[in-house]
Amino acid sequence: MTAKRAKAFEKRDFPVHEIRRFLEPGPIVLVSSAWKGATNIMTMGWHTVMEFQPSLVGCVIASGNHSFEMIRRSMECVINIPTVDIAATAVKIGNCSGSDTDKFAAFGPTAEPADGVKAPTIAECFASFECRLVDAALVDTYNFFMFEVVKAHVARVPKYPKTIHYRGDGTFMVSGENTARWRRLFRPGML
Amino acid sequence: MTAKRAKAFEKRDFPVHEIRRFLEPGPIVLVSSAWKGATNIMTMGWHTVMEFQPSLVGCVIASGNHSFEMIRRSMECVINIPTVDIAATAVKIGNCSGSDTDKFAAFGPTAEPADGVKAPTIAECFASFECRLVDAALVDTYNFFMFEVVKAHVARVPKYPKTIHYRGDGTFMVSGENTARWRRLFRPGML
Repeated sequence: MTAKRAKAFEKRDFPVHEIRRFLEPGPIVLVSSAWKGATNIMTMGWHTVMEFQPSLVGCVIASGNHSFEMIRRSMECVINIPTVDIAATAVKIGNCSGSDTDKFAAFGPTAEPADGVKAPTIAECFASFECRLVDAALVDTYNFFMFEVVKAHVARVPKYPKTIHYRGDGTFMVSGENTARWRRLFRPGML
Repeated sequence: MTAKRAKAFEKRDFPVHEIRRFLEPGPIVLVSSAWKGATNIMTMGWHTVMEFQPSLVGCVIASGNHSFEMIRRSMECVINIPTVDIAATAVKIGNCSGSDTDKFAAFGPTAEPADGVKAPTIAECFASFECRLVDAALVDTYNFFMFEVVKAHVARVPKYPKTIHYRGDGTFMVSGENTARWRRLFRPGML
């Protein structure tokens, strides 16, 4: 990813209780972290929305990842959602370790300061959710982190960027059509 | 959904440690359950793969759902993945309660006996994962259930059925292209 090929998104504040709009469809995300002056990024696909308010997200960060200790100790991270345009960068980030690679330097994404956490946001991702660890009860047993999204930044356009969804074995599903054609089947209270 | 419009998939055994192929991209699922002679189905989008072996899946089943107590008490369920062809049925199932509706009877999906759990599989879904509750530590606090997938049934064709992914507010993303074009960027050990 170079400055010529990947564009930075102009993001605005987004309601934290509505981030399911982007996370629930299941895209891979880039998790950025900071600890003792170093930063790191990992590519991650095992996450779920857990609550609207407070805005909770649960995810698995395997203990073999360099990010594991950085996030466990700093108790913070940023969940950034990449578009298909930087899929190759996301894959490269996921295929090396922060233990021997400065991923921001090696792969070129732009680290920008977050508002409420020390972990940086990634300019070339269309959405960045600043997270604080709120429950570590399942970290030791299942590598499962529960975060509260304390601030969300989302690009104004496009409304639904094309995201990539991992199937394992090097295969991705790219997000397709967005539609409200079944909306009439919802009871008002369910919307 | 009627017998004329929705087809049953012919499913075969599928390795439980590979179910991420279908769950990790984030589709909505139909969770079927059985308790004291009654069955139920709920539509659910808050789930994540948690481990390959044992095959673990975590998901949020809000306590307000009729399925909550059925699954908590029976300690079993089946996670079925619908295709876009039965999206309307999935929405209808999600917009009423098992407390006053027999959803199999009302909406027509076909309940089939599972191999290892009492909850039925759904014939018209292309994948059905039989689940046993393995950790209820976060059920009371976050409505978070951790299941082990003990048996998986998946249709042979198509390889990647079109799934629906919820964004909230009555809007869905329909799965798009499946591609291995970034596969060459993976280190062999990461595949």
